[in-house]
Amino acid sequence: MKKVAVLTSGGDAPGMNACLRAVVRGALYHGLEVYGIKRGYDGMIRGDIYKMKSYSVSNILGQGGTILKSARSVEFRTKEGRAKAAEQLKSRGIEGLVVIGGDGTFTGAKLLYEEHGLPVVGAPGTIDNDLYGTDSTIGYDTAVNTALDAIDKIRDTANSHDRVFFIEVMGRDSGYIAVQTGIGGGAELVMVPETRTTIDNVISTLQQGWDREKSASIVITAEGDQEGSAQEIAAKVKAKCPDKDIKVTTLGHIQRGGSPSAYDRILASRLGLAALEGLVAGKECVMAGIIKNEVVYTSLEDAITKDKPLNQDLVRMINILSV
Amino acid sequence: MKKVAVLTSGGDAPGMNACLRAVVRGALYHGLEVYGIKRGYDGMIRGDIYKMKSYSVSNILGQGGTILKSARSVEFRTKEGRAKAAEQLKSRGIEGLVVIGGDGTFTGAKLLYEEHGLPVVGAPGTIDNDLYGTDSTIGYDTAVNTALDAIDKIRDTANSHDRVFFIEVMGRDSGYIAVQTGIGGGAELVMVPETRTTIDNVISTLQQGWDREKSASIVITAEGDQEGSAQEIAAKVKAKCPDKDIKVTTLGHIQRGGSPSAYDRILASRLGLAALEGLVAGKECVMAGIIKNEVVYTSLEDAITKDKPLNQDLVRMINILSV
Amino acid sequence: MKKVAVLTSGGDAPGMNACLRAVVRGALYHGLEVYGIKRGYDGMIRGDIYKMKSYSVSNILGQGGTILKSARSVEFRTKEGRAKAAEQLKSRGIEGLVVIGGDGTFTGAKLLYEEHGLPVVGAPGTIDNDLYGTDSTIGYDTAVNTALDAIDKIRDTANSHDRVFFIEVMGRDSGYIAVQTGIGGGAELVMVPETRTTIDNVISTLQQGWDREKSASIVITAEGDQEGSAQEIAAKVKAKCPDKDIKVTTLGHIQRGGSPSAYDRILASRLGLAALEGLVAGKECVMAGIIKNEVVYTSLEDAITKDKPLNQDLVRMINILSV
Amino acid sequence: MKKVAVLTSGGDAPGMNACLRAVVRGALYHGLEVYGIKRGYDGMIRGDIYKMKSYSVSNILGQGGTILKSARSVEFRTKEGRAKAAEQLKSRGIEGLVVIGGDGTFTGAKLLYEEHGLPVVGAPGTIDNDLYGTDSTIGYDTAVNTALDAIDKIRDTANSHDRVFFIEVMGRDSGYIAVQTGIGGGAELVMVPETRTTIDNVISTLQQGWDREKSASIVITAEGDQEGSAQEIAAKVKAKCPDKDIKVTTLGHIQRGGSPSAYDRILASRLGLAALEGLVAGKECVMAGIIKNEVVYTSLEDAITKDKPLNQDLVRMINILSV
Repeated sequence: MKKVAVLTSGGDAPGMNACLRAVVRGALYHGLEVYGIKRGYDGMIRGDIYKMKSYSVSNILGQGGTILKSARSVEFRTKEGRAKAAEQLKSRGIEGLVVIGGDGTFTGAKLLYEEHGLPVVGAPGTIDNDLYGTDSTIGYDTAVNTALDAIDKIRDTANSHDRVFFIEVMGRDSGYIAVQTGIGGGAELVMVPETRTTIDNVISTLQQGWDREKSASIVITAEGDQEGSAQEIAAKVKAKCPDKDIKVTTLGHIQRGGSPSAYDRILASRLGLAALEGLVAGKECVMAGIIKNEVVYTSLEDAITKDKPLNQDLVRMINILSV
Repeated sequence: MKKVAVLTSGGDAPGMNACLRAVVRGALYHGLEVYGIKRGYDGMIRGDIYKMKSYSVSNILGQGGTILKSARSVEFRTKEGRAKAAEQLKSRGIEGLVVIGGDGTFTGAKLLYEEHGLPVVGAPGTIDNDLYGTDSTIGYDTAVNTALDAIDKIRDTANSHDRVFFIEVMGRDSGYIAVQTGIGGGAELVMVPETRTTIDNVISTLQQGWDREKSASIVITAEGDQEGSAQEIAAKVKAKCPDKDIKVTTLGHIQRGGSPSAYDRILASRLGLAALEGLVAGKECVMAGIIKNEVVYTSLEDAITKDKPLNQDLVRMINILSV
Repeated sequence: MKKVAVLTSGGDAPGMNACLRAVVRGALYHGLEVYGIKRGYDGMIRGDIYKMKSYSVSNILGQGGTILKSARSVEFRTKEGRAKAAEQLKSRGIEGLVVIGGDGTFTGAKLLYEEHGLPVVGAPGTIDNDLYGTDSTIGYDTAVNTALDAIDKIRDTANSHDRVFFIEVMGRDSGYIAVQTGIGGGAELVMVPETRTTIDNVISTLQQGWDREKSASIVITAEGDQEGSAQEIAAKVKAKCPDKDIKVTTLGHIQRGGSPSAYDRILASRLGLAALEGLVAGKECVMAGIIKNEVVYTSLEDAITKDKPLNQDLVRMINILSV
Repeated sequence: MKKVAVLTSGGDAPGMNACLRAVVRGALYHGLEVYGIKRGYDGMIRGDIYKMKSYSVSNILGQGGTILKSARSVEFRTKEGRAKAAEQLKSRGIEGLVVIGGDGTFTGAKLLYEEHGLPVVGAPGTIDNDLYGTDSTIGYDTAVNTALDAIDKIRDTANSHDRVFFIEVMGRDSGYIAVQTGIGGGAELVMVPETRTTIDNVISTLQQGWDREKSASIVITAEGDQEGSAQEIAAKVKAKCPDKDIKVTTLGHIQRGGSPSAYDRILASRLGLAALEGLVAGKECVMAGIIKNEVVYTSLEDAITKDKPLNQDLVRMINILSV
């Protein structure tokens, strides 16, 4: 293998740049030429591809977002689009591809491999931590810290006014961010898609606090919860407890940005290097992950489709610690 | 004067604790007894009042929220309620009161003075910076920094995806937070209640960026803007520009909490001490403020009712700098 | 077991309070009485012991330091001192002890168990991550993030002035903090006690950067490095490269304080609960740790004496990534 | 005036980039060509000068350091060097210069004006806040917040161990940073060059705390204090109080870096624009400053030589509030 390319795709996550830097410098270290593709599969189709040097990734280790940018591509969802994309790489002599992103990104990579035989290795970059084959995804730790910082601030107000706050965190269909921030933020309750929590459960938990004259209560809701958004859940609770002072905050996009945490910078560096070295070693159609502190390669098929259950130890802790 | 009391009321603001600390330690320094009233006027009516010592305010200088807590009081809006409240102080021999809060708090304080002759001095504690008689209110600088930190994070995503973001900041009827964060965050446009910005203005400003292939645009909207919430404004823009990738974030309550900035700690300390020393010097029914770096006392009447115009230099700058 | 006690000892670490909260709330959840001992073994000897309730640990989850405080105790190093200490617990009917701290703390705990049969379980609280039996110690992730934040700031200056900076981080005889911050901060070189790096090695690495006109270089040194402090190492390099602009910063005690990171809050909560539940389950003279994401109990003997080698993957990465 | 140039020089300060952005965009707004000079006067002599566009300053508003870089120039201190430098501008048709820096930078600018008639306007960029003619210099507010954040962290440890900490902050011959962080950090004592504080004063202040069993004491020392560095002061105190647990931290270069605060971004933007517009309006050999919230131009002569006294209100507050 002489030439490889790299792209970022899907929702941006803190640490994508650190991962990109590791791919580029790893490639140079192993004597390869390395090309950056701008705006994911969209740029691949359009041939927005440039040669990267060591200095191309200087001073990006601590930057949020992705310097390669990301975009949706309707055309890439067609067979013709993917053929065009593959041709862009072939015509440049590029023999392997590293993709940094989440399940949508990996679905596209898998098709590229299946339809055009292009070796691809993925690095899991998403704040949602919803990919099988790695204990943690790139950006997850930073997102949790950002959400936690926001919750700490909101607790100041909750305590000052003896209020109930419903705070919605990201995570799509996964409750990972919600559980981590729930424990880290000392929440009274965490509502996640993986477990059914009814409005009556919510009220009875809050009631325990009110009985002990607990001054403030914080409920963390995952965006994918069955009872709806934090806004909707709060409205349902308010309907049954009209005299309570209830507020809602939806943290939103602040969770995607910011300088990556130490954990994410190191994870991203390790996974970027592992993805590149996997490609060099002949891996095809896999994702590089870290499980129990060791690099592991999982087929993209498994990474996308297999379930990654919540750690039930953590769920149990919330009840004990908010006593 | 031998005994004074202090309370916090209204929405909490970072620095209220630092201000409280200065009132308490200032009182002790001047040989007075000082009493803390819990939960604002509500606690005053109920007699929830306790003697404070120097150590009562240890280690609170850097804490958000207010250890005296805050609450709304329906009863205090009645003449009878205020009579009860005044009696609670008189029966304890308390001869003066410092109130830390915003215009609602000062309205109550003014009535206490007018109806019961109780000397009151206010310290302006609100993130909105909407009080006449001080260049800056306690909590404003921290709220601006918190909002700015969020905007910096969102810009990572905006840049990575070439997106337009509408970000709503607090400020009630005032555009102060919006203008400061707009300049500090490099926004393309700031929408404030003080100036009329139509949806067509918004689109024509965004269009200038799109013409120059500017990768990302950020519009800051003040919560009191005439065109509605950020959510509503974005929907109106999207209706006219359906192909653009537009996102919305409402920063919400994170802006009220958190450890106060250096600026707010010092401002709060100065104003707490100035309020207390004003009371000792015989001031009645005034607010302590800092104008052009000097302590100034303004009648509560003026503080509440007079207008505090935006600095037009700053508004002008936004246009020049986002070129 | 009906009554247990808990103490913190040794250098404070962010997350000690979160761990304490988990011990206390875990004990109450399991129906035990729980006592807090102030100032470590010193307070144990003096009987500075009080009963803790659920609210005793309210709002400490996010606080740095330790509300139980820590102190050195010369007397506890004597057999007589330990006898007094054990007697203080026995006279109160306390049947088990959780100690939060590092190797000095555990050495003391082991003696208490051996000499007086008191069941003790340790929770590893130290920023140095130098304890065998757990992948990460409480406070380590926060210290790394604090150091990294400082390094990011210093890089601004290094880049602006084309300077070499030697930055000393904590870690006693361990290079863990140095390696993590070295990777996270994009350092050109990391000097740790576990590996011998000569001054000539330092200069030849710097020379590679100078040859490529790299604008700034950062060298991280662990406080236990064989070549001495950052100050000393910089002086030796300056002696051989007198025309270079070399600066030194010793990060010092800022690495011990601050609000714990999400990772440390969750780790501390898990380990506090695990320590308490280990005690309840009849464990004696062990430390609770987390290895590969599962709770593991290791004998205090092993925790203190066994070696915990640096992850060589990480050491290797530094060379590749700073190319 | 058709063409202007801009440089940064001296120690870097957070906000220099924001100021540069305002100079560049202000110049373009007023129809001028604008040139950036790399590495201060050194690059001016060497002709390291390039034309700047609007996008040249994109995404630098929130970045610490200076993208134009800074350097010392021995040659510029000679008359010949300055003649070469002036010639580089003249040969390019550059008719005016904005310099961003501190007193050394302004001394050079003044000579350029006097010897070669080049109109120069300065913008005060230094964390030390030691320039006459502006209430605040660019970078000062950020440096104070950075130092304060460090002090907050150290206080966690001080409280946990009942320790005395001596913390040295920057400021050269000025006590501004020390006084602000002293008040903001709740220090027991602040030692500044402007006021003589003897070791006996230090000990008697600390003794008051020890008498009241105050758990921790923090003394802030300015780097220019007459009693020496924090290290030296602590040694002198330790010599007289050998049984006390005394620690020292020298904050060092972290104070120079980091993303500028909201205050500094806005101040820098205003001063950059004011400097540019001053130049356009025909000002020569002045510094743009903000006094009492209005733009003011002061001769470089006065800016460098006149004294800027500490606000005595603030000094007085420290005694009252640490009671």
